[in-house]
Amino acid sequence: MRCTSEIDVRDVDESCINIDPIQVGGRLTADAMKAVIAYGDGYSVCDHCRKPFRLDFIQKPPIQQFHKELAAFVNMDEARVVPGARRGFQAVAGTYVQKGDPVLITALSHYTEVLAVENNGGIIREIPADDGKTITTDSAAETIETVSREFCRPPVLLFLDHFDYQYGNEHDVRGIIRVARQHDIPVVYNGAYTVGIMEVDGKGLGADFVVGSGHKSMAAPAPSGMLAATTERAAEVFRTTEARTDLTGRTFGIKEVEMMGCTLMGVTLVGMMASFPHVRERVKHWDEHLSRGRKVVESLERIVGTRIQSEMPRNHTLTRVDTIQSFDKVANTHKKKGFFFSSELKARGIAGIIPGATKVWKFNTYGLSAAQSDYLAETFLGIAEKYGLDIQ
Amino acid sequence: MRCTSEIDVRDVDESCINIDPIQVGGRLTADAMKAVIAYGDGYSVCDHCRKPFRLDFIQKPPIQQFHKELAAFVNMDEARVVPGARRGFQAVAGTYVQKGDPVLITALSHYTEVLAVENNGGIIREIPADDGKTITTDSAAETIETVSREFCRPPVLLFLDHFDYQYGNEHDVRGIIRVARQHDIPVVYNGAYTVGIMEVDGKGLGADFVVGSGHKSMAAPAPSGMLAATTERAAEVFRTTEARTDLTGRTFGIKEVEMMGCTLMGVTLVGMMASFPHVRERVKHWDEHLSRGRKVVESLERIVGTRIQSEMPRNHTLTRVDTIQSFDKVANTHKKKGFFFSSELKARGIAGIIPGATKVWKFNTYGLSAAQSDYLAETFLGIAEKYGLDIQ
Repeated sequence: MRCTSEIDVRDVDESCINIDPIQVGGRLTADAMKAVIAYGDGYSVCDHCRKPFRLDFIQKPPIQQFHKELAAFVNMDEARVVPGARRGFQAVAGTYVQKGDPVLITALSHYTEVLAVENNGGIIREIPADDGKTITTDSAAETIETVSREFCRPPVLLFLDHFDYQYGNEHDVRGIIRVARQHDIPVVYNGAYTVGIMEVDGKGLGADFVVGSGHKSMAAPAPSGMLAATTERAAEVFRTTEARTDLTGRTFGIKEVEMMGCTLMGVTLVGMMASFPHVRERVKHWDEHLSRGRKVVESLERIVGTRIQSEMPRNHTLTRVDTIQSFDKVANTHKKKGFFFSSELKARGIAGIIPGATKVWKFNTYGLSAAQSDYLAETFLGIAEKYGLDIQ
Repeated sequence: MRCTSEIDVRDVDESCINIDPIQVGGRLTADAMKAVIAYGDGYSVCDHCRKPFRLDFIQKPPIQQFHKELAAFVNMDEARVVPGARRGFQAVAGTYVQKGDPVLITALSHYTEVLAVENNGGIIREIPADDGKTITTDSAAETIETVSREFCRPPVLLFLDHFDYQYGNEHDVRGIIRVARQHDIPVVYNGAYTVGIMEVDGKGLGADFVVGSGHKSMAAPAPSGMLAATTERAAEVFRTTEARTDLTGRTFGIKEVEMMGCTLMGVTLVGMMASFPHVRERVKHWDEHLSRGRKVVESLERIVGTRIQSEMPRNHTLTRVDTIQSFDKVANTHKKKGFFFSSELKARGIAGIIPGATKVWKFNTYGLSAAQSDYLAETFLGIAEKYGLDIQ
């Protein structure tokens, strides 16, 4: 089926149980879908833009109110919408990182944090993970000391992923932020895998910034996201233009330099807003999503040779699994090679695993109903059984 | 009518003739609307993302092909999609502008160019406009000389709007670029008001970069846009990451630093792609849109006291008009004050003029059918007649 002569209809979330590691938190709610249809046109939220002509002041649709609610949602003072979490990282790095400045990330940090630092000439230093692939407070404290000695000054910024994208492991954000604050290092809490699916208390954690992703975890179209800050940091990262042109003497009001003025002028923002009441509700039910995910992980563990690479018990629905000694052994002799696994999944209505992957792969069960997650757990076992793998 | 409990349905383009200065080129085509519905979910274009894991390599939907066609469309060598034209300016400024560097804009440049320069510590110098509010080659040449003397080196970059956002006036891009090239100054051709509504020949003009806006002129959802470059400049502005993390030795393949990796991962890009065949066709019919717009301008000129502030004859459908001596005189005694005008327009099915504006205001007739533009022309005259303004 096609929606234009060159573009196929996308119906993966209508026709399958999708467990794609990055997609599941970004599925639109029904309200968002309705809003997307009404606000598809470019600049669609600008009908009622009046002085001072900035996106977050627009009252109809209620964008101004949404910004306040967004800040409150993660318990921060100010928030702006941005075209993806990465634009949040970029804005913060652009504000604090000068050439040659040491910047801390972790051994499991997302690549977009690295790009944000690289583009400002900062020097990356990683906080190591422990054997269980988690970042501990001790490790952070030690790295801060080492890097401070190396550069004769503390790092200018710390990017901290609450849950990382590689393993979906939880890292000790509270402890690490406490240590960073002792050294006056501003901390960016990367909530790409938390904001919108579980409750986040930015100021409670001591974070200077909270970054969230609309298309990853807030049931919003891409590219969308949020950058929230404390009042003190907001004055820095959301600083307004001071430019005055030399000849005409033009000034540009309260446009914010790092935001490049307005950010999401249409469908992306309205989609985010339409989903928001549902998102605010769904974060209260994170435990249910987590326990469903754990059941799926338990069934995978029953397949002999399968090893969960993520920390156990799971604290996130994103999980990395090693099936080299189970499904990959089947792939070695199957005529479809590794593609047998995705074929079998597809035949059973499961989508989102990279086709051909039978060694190490990731999946995310967020958003599945109890019936769907039970079905998924049974499906993994069923495929294992079909190919004669031992089940404990 | 509401699409959620807090968000009204937007139907301005369904229920009215919309002449909003910034919105008319961003109305979705029917194909884009279908694509938007199918690709609303976050990360919706990533289903078939395979190595090397970059947006512009995805073949299904045909994003890779689209990027090639996009570059060819403006006769440049390479193109990337970006979240709005402003992100294109930001990427170029980030590549070429260091603290203290002189950067040329024009007296009519868009504010986002200023922000891009400001954020990199560049020093703005404006090329003056002449009395007719156009930027001439002579003026550009003189400013380049003056600024080069002032800084003992030529400016590092020139931002040049083919048509400006204030008057919709055409500036001598060909001549100005020729002069800039003589001084080895890279030029950003700002096509926010051209790319997608008229034919643009980037390399023919000698531009180093062509920036376009999806939501302003390419019938695409917001935020979207494009940044195109010559092969030589592409290597600079689309440079890939060179970062290698210190501890884990991670590298990040061919992710592009200024793009922050991938840019438009869903509805914005697919909307742009779905509209593209129509956009490519519609640019051939620019003359028709222009002549319809001229008829509207002619009718406004017949209202005694009204003055077209934009250059005449019009070379763009975006026009700035001064009605201080016509409609504003009515406003002075009308109980609704300036709002009488927007009320009268609204009652006649015309939307897009800032409510209350009767002094100096802008409108854009792009995309109107012949019948609609005739109706609009008559409507302006009809309102003038109703309030006893003289008509020539």
